[in-house]
Amino acid sequence: MTHPAGTIYRKTELVGTSATGYDDAIRHAVERAQKTLRNVQWFEVKEQRGRITSGGIEYQVTLDIGFALEG
Amino acid sequence: MTHPAGTIYRKTELVGTSATGYDDAIRHAVERAQKTLRNVQWFEVKEQRGRITSGGIEYQVTLDIGFALEG
Amino acid sequence: MTHPAGTIYRKTELVGTSATGYDDAIRHAVERAQKTLRNVQWFEVKEQRGRITSGGIEYQVTLDIGFALEG
Amino acid sequence: MTHPAGTIYRKTELVGTSATGYDDAIRHAVERAQKTLRNVQWFEVKEQRGRITSGGIEYQVTLDIGFALEG
Amino acid sequence: MTHPAGTIYRKTELVGTSATGYDDAIRHAVERAQKTLRNVQWFEVKEQRGRITSGGIEYQVTLDIGFALEG
Amino acid sequence: MTHPAGTIYRKTELVGTSATGYDDAIRHAVERAQKTLRNVQWFEVKEQRGRITSGGIEYQVTLDIGFALEG
Amino acid sequence: MTHPAGTIYRKTELVGTSATGYDDAIRHAVERAQKTLRNVQWFEVKEQRGRITSGGIEYQVTLDIGFALEG
Amino acid sequence: MTHPAGTIYRKTELVGTSATGYDDAIRHAVERAQKTLRNVQWFEVKEQRGRITSGGIEYQVTLDIGFALEG
Amino acid sequence: MTHPAGTIYRKTELVGTSATGYDDAIRHAVERAQKTLRNVQWFEVKEQRGRITSGGIEYQVTLDIGFALEG
Amino acid sequence: MTHPAGTIYRKTELVGTSATGYDDAIRHAVERAQKTLRNVQWFEVKEQRGRITSGGIEYQVTLDIGFALEG
Amino acid sequence: MTHPAGTIYRKTELVGTSATGYDDAIRHAVERAQKTLRNVQWFEVKEQRGRITSGGIEYQVTLDIGFALEG
Amino acid sequence: MTHPAGTIYRKTELVGTSATGYDDAIRHAVERAQKTLRNVQWFEVKEQRGRITSGGIEYQVTLDIGFALEG
Repeated sequence: MTHPAGTIYRKTELVGTSATGYDDAIRHAVERAQKTLRNVQWFEVKEQRGRITSGGIEYQVTLDIGFALEG
Repeated sequence: MTHPAGTIYRKTELVGTSATGYDDAIRHAVERAQKTLRNVQWFEVKEQRGRITSGGIEYQVTLDIGFALEG
Repeated sequence: MTHPAGTIYRKTELVGTSATGYDDAIRHAVERAQKTLRNVQWFEVKEQRGRITSGGIEYQVTLDIGFALEG
Repeated sequence: MTHPAGTIYRKTELVGTSATGYDDAIRHAVERAQKTLRNVQWFEVKEQRGRITSGGIEYQVTLDIGFALEG
Repeated sequence: MTHPAGTIYRKTELVGTSATGYDDAIRHAVERAQKTLRNVQWFEVKEQRGRITSGGIEYQVTLDIGFALEG
Repeated sequence: MTHPAGTIYRKTELVGTSATGYDDAIRHAVERAQKTLRNVQWFEVKEQRGRITSGGIEYQVTLDIGFALEG
Repeated sequence: MTHPAGTIYRKTELVGTSATGYDDAIRHAVERAQKTLRNVQWFEVKEQRGRITSGGIEYQVTLDIGFALEG
Repeated sequence: MTHPAGTIYRKTELVGTSATGYDDAIRHAVERAQKTLRNVQWFEVKEQRGRITSGGIEYQVTLDIGFALEG
Repeated sequence: MTHPAGTIYRKTELVGTSATGYDDAIRHAVERAQKTLRNVQWFEVKEQRGRITSGGIEYQVTLDIGFALEG
Repeated sequence: MTHPAGTIYRKTELVGTSATGYDDAIRHAVERAQKTLRNVQWFEVKEQRGRITSGGIEYQVTLDIGFALEG
Repeated sequence: MTHPAGTIYRKTELVGTSATGYDDAIRHAVERAQKTLRNVQWFEVKEQRGRITSGGIEYQVTLDIGFALEG
Repeated sequence: MTHPAGTIYRKTELVGTSATGYDDAIRHAVERAQKTLRNVQWFEVKEQRGRITSGGIEYQVTLDIGFALEG
């Protein structure tokens, strides 16, 4: 009674950082994901935090990144 | 025993998108709301997501947008 | 394989206000909903906030208000 | 400094019901949405409840239904 | 002061899809997990969404899938 | 200053299981509740999980089941 | 390595109703709990909802009510 | 690249109590805040609980109270 | 169309206390549950609080405790 | 229409740390609170985290600590 | 049985505002915190809201800001 | 417009178990993570559960464990 399966996706959780802001921190995390994963398709922001350093603010964003599994 | 009513507000839920970032996506959603609604007064960020396209990242932000109802 | 549909309901999100308290603010929001909607049947309290003015406290309550859709 | 806006979406909250189960209740709500809205694209399940009647169980599912706004 | 360790489990997050409904989408995700993981033991439903296509509804379910780590 | 009391309801939390799916697991839990409780009126889905056994998937659904208290 | 046990408490979940408001609905639920339970000590508001009837609003409040178990 | 700062607000968390109900408990907490803080502007209800005493119910409400910081 | 029912479980909510810590408070609650319930199988930690007394800290842990219902 | 105020409490948010575990980290935070605050009465655990150092695990617990305000 | 205490941190909740966006609003709140607090080390974004004024959007971000307590 | 990326972190979700308590279960999970991952830096407690066996309580703790990705 199982029907032919549609696509299956997996999510992986990354934390991107940036001295500039969250949009930039997201770009860093997505680019890193694309270095080792194929078919990266979407992300969800789970948490936004930051660290105060002598050089200013380090923005930290936690993402769930979704990609399609092959075969 | 009912006292004279104060202002009543309504919230509507919009998703703004931008290739630049979330601040910009919010501006798009607020401007769109103002095209059809009067008395738009505040918003609340409910969710931040994104889609990875061949052209880069599409930032997506879900807002509850509040406006005063008239009479 | 779709069975005959039961009733469909819609929810709309209103914020009622009152100088007296939350029970009163809810009454204001429900009465306002009934001015433009038919078949208003239930509500759910989503948030309770308030504003401090020179005249005292303005109680603000956010409701999801449910009503049956016709045909 | 505002960039050309991407698509704006709106979400509306419906409750579908069914005597059979949640998958069927979702179909009812989506079909109802399509009667009055264009460009219905996705939904999110917010809540699953039910009512016990003399005839059995009425499954009730609350959905946020997303559709693209035009121009 | 550390006692002998009990079993350690890991969770991985998958999204299963189906044209039929959520029970079926879960089966697809679990079967996919079993293709590459041993000792798959339980799952937790994290989110239920869907996409409306020209062919009907695509049900999407996000699962945390738990499996025992070996040695 | 206490007004005559309306109906009082109680909720009890049950977990139904099924080899078929969640709709069926809910029916099992509701039928079990009706064996020992009168006036069972509604339920709310709190959690959906499952166990993978040699025989396939066991769907597990946690419900808050509401019933009216008498006198 | 188990130390002498302190008091153990149990929570039961009741829904009180009132035509007047939530404070009154809470009193009804607490009084009902005291009819069958001893040592009722505290409560926590879990949910506030309501039903619109021909006679006005029925306020509904869900409480977790805590009481000390004896011996 | 930092723009002139807008107003900065601070939130403090108070618990107000009352033998009458939550609206009254909120007034007590707000009045107490105004004894030691200037520019008290809004509040958010975080939690509603209560204690059952020999004299009846003590309503307890936890508020986040917001006020503008000066210079 | 109902399949033979699997096991049905019930959850009950207890608060265990201890002068030592949360692990010990959980043991107290589980042992108390086993005095009146059969088939106690698992628990979930819902909340951790504490009270400061003249004698030190009283750790309080709220558990949902699950047990299998018979026939 | 304001009734004589009951006690007002305030909550402050501290993070205690320990190389031993959470029970010990809580004791550290409570003792620190008692150095500068009077009437410390209860706490609520909000978050449990940790840091891995060369010397082992540093357990970190975030508490809301409640104390009665005077006059 | 209490071990030497590690560092204790405190969190304070501020709302930063900006006409430009959230990254900027965070910088304002952090700079304000550093005017009166020493050892400011990290922050967590709790809420993002905004107000629509005649001059455009005022972005508002609520932060929990963490700092180490001395001695 | 992308700035040089800061460190990227990944989180993996493990469940540690112990017959002794949660502090010990966390140590087990962290030690297991360090067997296959480098740069393990922090963890967050997501859930605390347990199983009652003939031999007593098995404490189960779900952790998100964070580690720095290399190059």
